[in-house]
Amino acid sequence: MSRYLAADLQKLAAYVPGEQPQDKRYIKLNTNENPYYPSERAVNAVTETEVKNLRLYSDPDSKKLIAAIAENFGLSEKNVVVGNGSDEILAFSFRAFGQNGACFPDVTYGFYKVFADMFGVEKEILPLTAEFKINASDYFHKDKLVVIANPNAQTGIVLPLSQIEKIVENNRNGVVLVDEAYVDFGGESAAELTKKHENLVVVQTFSKSRSLAGARVGFAVASEALIDDLNRVRNSFNPYNVNRLSALVACEAMKDKSYFQDSVKKVVAVREFVKQELEKRGFFVLGSCANFLMAKSDKIGGEELYLALKESGVLVRHFKDERIKDFVRVSIGTKEDMEFFLQKTDEILRRRS
Amino acid sequence: MSRYLAADLQKLAAYVPGEQPQDKRYIKLNTNENPYYPSERAVNAVTETEVKNLRLYSDPDSKKLIAAIAENFGLSEKNVVVGNGSDEILAFSFRAFGQNGACFPDVTYGFYKVFADMFGVEKEILPLTAEFKINASDYFHKDKLVVIANPNAQTGIVLPLSQIEKIVENNRNGVVLVDEAYVDFGGESAAELTKKHENLVVVQTFSKSRSLAGARVGFAVASEALIDDLNRVRNSFNPYNVNRLSALVACEAMKDKSYFQDSVKKVVAVREFVKQELEKRGFFVLGSCANFLMAKSDKIGGEELYLALKESGVLVRHFKDERIKDFVRVSIGTKEDMEFFLQKTDEILRRRS
Repeated sequence: MSRYLAADLQKLAAYVPGEQPQDKRYIKLNTNENPYYPSERAVNAVTETEVKNLRLYSDPDSKKLIAAIAENFGLSEKNVVVGNGSDEILAFSFRAFGQNGACFPDVTYGFYKVFADMFGVEKEILPLTAEFKINASDYFHKDKLVVIANPNAQTGIVLPLSQIEKIVENNRNGVVLVDEAYVDFGGESAAELTKKHENLVVVQTFSKSRSLAGARVGFAVASEALIDDLNRVRNSFNPYNVNRLSALVACEAMKDKSYFQDSVKKVVAVREFVKQELEKRGFFVLGSCANFLMAKSDKIGGEELYLALKESGVLVRHFKDERIKDFVRVSIGTKEDMEFFLQKTDEILRRRS
Repeated sequence: MSRYLAADLQKLAAYVPGEQPQDKRYIKLNTNENPYYPSERAVNAVTETEVKNLRLYSDPDSKKLIAAIAENFGLSEKNVVVGNGSDEILAFSFRAFGQNGACFPDVTYGFYKVFADMFGVEKEILPLTAEFKINASDYFHKDKLVVIANPNAQTGIVLPLSQIEKIVENNRNGVVLVDEAYVDFGGESAAELTKKHENLVVVQTFSKSRSLAGARVGFAVASEALIDDLNRVRNSFNPYNVNRLSALVACEAMKDKSYFQDSVKKVVAVREFVKQELEKRGFFVLGSCANFLMAKSDKIGGEELYLALKESGVLVRHFKDERIKDFVRVSIGTKEDMEFFLQKTDEILRRRS
């Protein structure tokens, strides 16, 4: 840190992304990546001509990509904005709509509190229930930015759409942002509700269900006025925020609906298989509608299991936060990856008994 | 605009990028793109395997790319940070170092004032001299963020490195940011000076001299402490800010030094040819060390020439700002592009006489 850094940033604790160790090959089940390749249609779109055309700026309006997203949701192009990953859209939202503060659950995507600090937005953090559920009425009449990940990050638990709508209806003086990074693996999107509610922003990403984490493309759908606000921030920060090749592959991935549905179906089937297998071994596993599982065992602590798995060549994620420190978060890989994970887990538990 | 938008953003005038009309094919000389393709080495790096691996997140530390940049400048990897275009690095710098305000010239990159407004940074705008030059001592003892584009945007005029160093030495309580987007076309980089001065940030981009505008990659070099500050902002905003394919092509483009030197040489030669040709036609042309020329004629107004050229299929840029409204800014394309531009200019002037 230098003596030139703005005072409010000096005490800011940055987000810590999942580790990417380079010392050996791991089965990577720690950052919720999709084990399947992106749609072939997306891969084939990256021709030599397209790569050569990187000499030209990307379209600052990302027209083709936005048209594909709008078509997918049956919305107008004026209801869509795209970002350099959904993180950028989330950041823009805190900047645009956080002036009266922001509230979100204690157990959720760890970046929300960082965005709040980054933009000087006051945080109100509301605890999940003992069963790690969101109690919708806790978020009524906040009249500030309400941020709900649905399915929730770290738990995978879904809040029914009727409850989301209740939160929206009871916060007419604030924007409700629903972060649907994981929705395609079992949740129900609130995108359709943006037609009815002018204070709802729904954020999604191409990183998980469309296998494009490394392309960094996310988007929001909302009323025209809210999209206009987000574009105002985007144009004041980085108007060419989505690069040419990422816009291209995301556009093609969005159009390839059958591949998307197939690969989501496979991830969900493997998730249910792994959940059962973990339960057979005495784990307590949260009911996840995402592409990961949160699991804990009374035979081994969360951090200990994480370290032992890492030693065995399997990377999972452990969070030190008090309420979830007994768990490990396991991303859903291929069936083979998960069988290797289960085998290593068995070996670790066997060594301890 | 919605009623939810933060009050300070409601009055913000966003940056306006150069137009990208889709109605017909133009010779595009309006956004300072490089007319030559990126290095073949960069193009060939985008294999099918790399595209398929978009399923995985990019390296949040962009290690390989940063190593290539550090090597190029003879600096350590701790002296480099990368961004989603240099615009993102500039935005981070205003957020990190702008707490006592920021000052910059009246004629320069139009985005600086937008970044200032976006992050609530007080602006001090200092006029260029009548010859559109920066008077270094105007920037002494500001003890705030000083932002100098060198060569300057819109003029292409260079401030000698000795003058940059004087500004740095006379602002020990503020960061001096030198934006070298155009430096490779004739300026002298201040990168080496970052070894001596802890308050200097030098920002460059792959968009212009390395023909990668559409990849969106920029970087800063500075003392380890300032890079640490910029990383703190980056990690609080978007830790995976550079996508996989852009990091890959930028890394290879940086390593291909001979291609880079050749294509820069070609652009400079065409620029000097066009400057002479315009002068032959009675234009007043600023002495540019960038990949564009600012030119005005007493036979036709700037806006009028811009519109007439657009009508003829050539896009140049016109700015309405009082001091430069008589000029058009012409990006340097291929020799053929520029001959077409000159021919159309001749036709336009002939029609008026």
